Amino acid sequence: MKKIAIIMGSDSDLPILKQGIDTLKEFAIPMEVRIMSAHRTPDDVSTFAKAARENGFGAIIAAAGKAAHLAGVIAAFTTIPVIGIPIKSSTLDGLDALLSTVQMPGGVPVATVAIDGSKNAALLAIEMLAIEDENLAKKLDEYRIKQSEEVRIKNSSIDF
Amino acid sequence: MKKIAIIMGSDSDLPILKQGIDTLKEFAIPMEVRIMSAHRTPDDVSTFAKAARENGFGAIIAAAGKAAHLAGVIAAFTTIPVIGIPIKSSTLDGLDALLSTVQMPGGVPVATVAIDGSKNAALLAIEMLAIEDENLAKKLDEYRIKQSEEVRIKNSSIDF
Amino acid sequence: MKKIAIIMGSDSDLPILKQGIDTLKEFAIPMEVRIMSAHRTPDDVSTFAKAARENGFGAIIAAAGKAAHLAGVIAAFTTIPVIGIPIKSSTLDGLDALLSTVQMPGGVPVATVAIDGSKNAALLAIEMLAIEDENLAKKLDEYRIKQSEEVRIKNSSIDF
Amino acid sequence: MKKIAIIMGSDSDLPILKQGIDTLKEFAIPMEVRIMSAHRTPDDVSTFAKAARENGFGAIIAAAGKAAHLAGVIAAFTTIPVIGIPIKSSTLDGLDALLSTVQMPGGVPVATVAIDGSKNAALLAIEMLAIEDENLAKKLDEYRIKQSEEVRIKNSSIDF
Amino acid sequence: MKKIAIIMGSDSDLPILKQGIDTLKEFAIPMEVRIMSAHRTPDDVSTFAKAARENGFGAIIAAAGKAAHLAGVIAAFTTIPVIGIPIKSSTLDGLDALLSTVQMPGGVPVATVAIDGSKNAALLAIEMLAIEDENLAKKLDEYRIKQSEEVRIKNSSIDF
Amino acid sequence: MKKIAIIMGSDSDLPILKQGIDTLKEFAIPMEVRIMSAHRTPDDVSTFAKAARENGFGAIIAAAGKAAHLAGVIAAFTTIPVIGIPIKSSTLDGLDALLSTVQMPGGVPVATVAIDGSKNAALLAIEMLAIEDENLAKKLDEYRIKQSEEVRIKNSSIDF
Amino acid sequence: MKKIAIIMGSDSDLPILKQGIDTLKEFAIPMEVRIMSAHRTPDDVSTFAKAARENGFGAIIAAAGKAAHLAGVIAAFTTIPVIGIPIKSSTLDGLDALLSTVQMPGGVPVATVAIDGSKNAALLAIEMLAIEDENLAKKLDEYRIKQSEEVRIKNSSIDF
Amino acid sequence: MKKIAIIMGSDSDLPILKQGIDTLKEFAIPMEVRIMSAHRTPDDVSTFAKAARENGFGAIIAAAGKAAHLAGVIAAFTTIPVIGIPIKSSTLDGLDALLSTVQMPGGVPVATVAIDGSKNAALLAIEMLAIEDENLAKKLDEYRIKQSEEVRIKNSSIDF
Repeated sequence: MKKIAIIMGSDSDLPILKQGIDTLKEFAIPMEVRIMSAHRTPDDVSTFAKAARENGFGAIIAAAGKAAHLAGVIAAFTTIPVIGIPIKSSTLDGLDALLSTVQMPGGVPVATVAIDGSKNAALLAIEMLAIEDENLAKKLDEYRIKQSEEVRIKNSSIDF
Repeated sequence: MKKIAIIMGSDSDLPILKQGIDTLKEFAIPMEVRIMSAHRTPDDVSTFAKAARENGFGAIIAAAGKAAHLAGVIAAFTTIPVIGIPIKSSTLDGLDALLSTVQMPGGVPVATVAIDGSKNAALLAIEMLAIEDENLAKKLDEYRIKQSEEVRIKNSSIDF
Repeated sequence: MKKIAIIMGSDSDLPILKQGIDTLKEFAIPMEVRIMSAHRTPDDVSTFAKAARENGFGAIIAAAGKAAHLAGVIAAFTTIPVIGIPIKSSTLDGLDALLSTVQMPGGVPVATVAIDGSKNAALLAIEMLAIEDENLAKKLDEYRIKQSEEVRIKNSSIDF
Repeated sequence: MKKIAIIMGSDSDLPILKQGIDTLKEFAIPMEVRIMSAHRTPDDVSTFAKAARENGFGAIIAAAGKAAHLAGVIAAFTTIPVIGIPIKSSTLDGLDALLSTVQMPGGVPVATVAIDGSKNAALLAIEMLAIEDENLAKKLDEYRIKQSEEVRIKNSSIDF
Repeated sequence: MKKIAIIMGSDSDLPILKQGIDTLKEFAIPMEVRIMSAHRTPDDVSTFAKAARENGFGAIIAAAGKAAHLAGVIAAFTTIPVIGIPIKSSTLDGLDALLSTVQMPGGVPVATVAIDGSKNAALLAIEMLAIEDENLAKKLDEYRIKQSEEVRIKNSSIDF
Repeated sequence: MKKIAIIMGSDSDLPILKQGIDTLKEFAIPMEVRIMSAHRTPDDVSTFAKAARENGFGAIIAAAGKAAHLAGVIAAFTTIPVIGIPIKSSTLDGLDALLSTVQMPGGVPVATVAIDGSKNAALLAIEMLAIEDENLAKKLDEYRIKQSEEVRIKNSSIDF
Repeated sequence: MKKIAIIMGSDSDLPILKQGIDTLKEFAIPMEVRIMSAHRTPDDVSTFAKAARENGFGAIIAAAGKAAHLAGVIAAFTTIPVIGIPIKSSTLDGLDALLSTVQMPGGVPVATVAIDGSKNAALLAIEMLAIEDENLAKKLDEYRIKQSEEVRIKNSSIDF
Repeated sequence: MKKIAIIMGSDSDLPILKQGIDTLKEFAIPMEVRIMSAHRTPDDVSTFAKAARENGFGAIIAAAGKAAHLAGVIAAFTTIPVIGIPIKSSTLDGLDALLSTVQMPGGVPVATVAIDGSKNAALLAIEMLAIEDENLAKKLDEYRIKQSEEVRIKNSSIDF
């Protein structure tokens, strides 16, 4: 199976990414987790991104805050799908990271999820791998069913 | 090869989607284009989404404006990747559609591209199909090279 | 008397909805409270919404955060009035939920109240029931008079 | 049948309200259309609002732009449902009118629809009248079916 | 000397208004402080506003949060200057109150100060009274000089 | 009678200010109109502001766009009331000018009106002059009555 | 004299940059103008930026729209000052480009000017070169004086 | 070596400026730190700014919150580069200060950094001084290398 890379711009993003990492673990997806910065280690980023496909990655998840260039910079160097997670920082409530991640110009796409949405980034990566993997697709469907059941259980025990 | 679905909430979105459709054609990706509304034909949407994987779709592109629920509603009924294109309408400059598309709650992801970003939605769908298709991956790389060349040609002839 | 349904997308919304539930209780309005998610239990939502009128509901209050599709999705399946409460979540201060709830396209209305405005959602539902119920209308007028009195009492004892 | 009032803050709002007026006509709803300003004719507004229920109105639609106080001011003087339409003006793209209309404090609700959303305001008013009017409810359902059919016709003839 | 009225929509606004009240006290400006709501005691508001000039008021300061209609509603009933203070509430960081207060349509002005800016509201009211009161103008100038001195003292003792 | 100064940061603001100038003319208020820039002629601005009271001005209206510092800079040099008009420019729809004008720090107030709201700026200035001028106050009341009548005439002839 | 580089992400930005280029010409500053894209020709960008200092550049002006990464990406590869011009595109009124340019994380600065502010970008670059160039500093002062005179001429001939 | 001035509008900004001051110290840049307010000590500001170049300053860093006029007002009185730091205050999350600082009209530039971005303001000032100072340029490059190493160390020890 192809691997998923999770790249964060700063180690302060790790708590937000935990839920995404756990989701990948839950699906037993092989992954690598890296701290690399579009601005502080740009050559590491481009080296990683250029070699990502041949190194067996199927998709790259990139998380960054503020002027969040990381996902876009990675996407500039590879044609494997890049998933961007905008991270909320101390000002502007995540709007800066969201717009910096999602408003990519034509030609170089980034698949953006919600601000701090690392769980969905992981699920989206798994959905991509599952396009040609029936087994994984089945696991995703089962995950959804379990998820629905959890809502129904809460619904049946609501106390107001 | 898996097919790509392009769903728009209203036929008024077609001009914006044209560039995405043309991009899929350029890569010879099999596709189906539909007008279906999360609010006006919700059962058609869920019927389509539930059967999408078994009908041979690899990814679904959904475009909608204002309170753009279409991508999220489709994503609720399938685990194949859903790509959301927020469409700018007559008020709020696309911000409403962007937030309605990208801020999905945990559990049901939507891969969001830029407001009116149909070309990138198409490229993202192709990147997903290319994860397990070396040929298509090569075509994507060539497309990028051509794209770089176009910038370089413009650079060499800039007149100021 | 017709019943009011209160649907929330997640049980984490319950504290915000408490004030609305209490308001309905204060007016002795029959109600049902449910946890149903537009994204995690979409079929439950549509089943509920389609049968709502014949099951004796006069209006449906729907509360959700982030890309708050719940009210709009319910409204797509019924023509009884749907009242949307945008819920503030951890990012964007409720703006995402507000725009996702209020900016409905033409043809399928949602009556939107303030962010976290569950009390007003309840009052609005009661006002709807009171259109053809003079008794209830009178109770609403008395409620307003009491409300005015409370302001006047505070005014008379202000200490600065 | 109860009447619907449509109040606009300025005659410049009439073109936007046309679609809502036409929708009420299509359903043969008795209506009155007025120009009254929360700021320029405030006493006319309060006089109208206070007498609205006894004058046979079932709901009031109020449209205003900028610091759109009209709907909230009307709601302060009546307990029949007030539907607010925020009108986009020459600056801020309608955001000012939206927030001024929807963010009502607890105790006095306004049912807010989309910016410039007069059609949905009309439909919402009709839905309110239909709570206790089976005939009207049936008409609303037929309207929805027709609306769905229009989408399906466009879908079947899409040309890309 | 003319009196200044300070009107707040809710007693929860009192802590924010404290600084403005203290500023008026510091200048020995006669004042009345009231809790009156544009939505919950609208008739009290209009009664007060209509009689304000003949009751000896020179200006009215009005503070409200969310869909902050109070200043505008008061301004609709009087031609003495109305100063609006937008109050920050639990959502949207004060933007709703700011736009609801400042974006008044042509014909009925509100003099808006910063969000939570009660000190400046008081100073503005004093400046208005000082237009025809040389003594008060001199006090304002002295206040400014003292204010400058405080900055200079901090500057001279800065420790970094 | 005290004079009103109208200062604009650029002659491109003149068309927006026309309505305000005409309103002052309608009330026969003595005025001076100036082009002075907080950034390009800052010494002219401070010289003017420092001498404004002794030169017979009762209030200063200042209009500027983008990072609209003009009103605040004038207010720093005088204690006569300064009224700020945020001017919409080619980007951000006036939000930049609004926040730059209204969000003044404590100690130096600016009375801010709506974006492009020159008519209300003029009316506000007149209201200030009328605090101690019964004749002018009466004219303002008559102006309001005429204004109300215009709305009522439009109301009586509405055609839909 | 050190050269100034003007880099734009797309040739569609050239009209906006014209005023900045003309300003550099007016000061006879040696310059190079390039089209290079952070996303479509990322290696060209890093190659250019890494060699910029030794190639005689004193500052780099970078203009880009949407998720405007260009200035930040250049700044990641050089320690000569990088000036970012956010370019307004067809959606969001330039807010996306502004936040993507200005909200740089600590360690890698970008000197951001106003949206579409190419004239100020040029002046800022000249100011940087003038830090150690008295002659150029004098020219800047003369430019400011001329600029002031233009405002004064307009002021003296204002017609209202 | 030229000096750097750090000016803050209020001593409450000092904690945010600490990181910038420390960065200047780390590079052994001569500096002066001042508290001066565009609104409370405007003459001090203009006196300082007018004499800044002849007093040996190479650049001025100005930090202010809310309607942050300080950087723009300083820039109006000098042609040495002015770097603006927008400071986040209790409302609007820093957006007001950002727009007030960055949206300068043509002719008078301010080099704006991120909200609360004092470290980058310092680095930008150093970059300006380093244009003609090879030694300082080398130090900046070494600083960047150290910065990259810190990221790499964190990357090598990431624990998830």
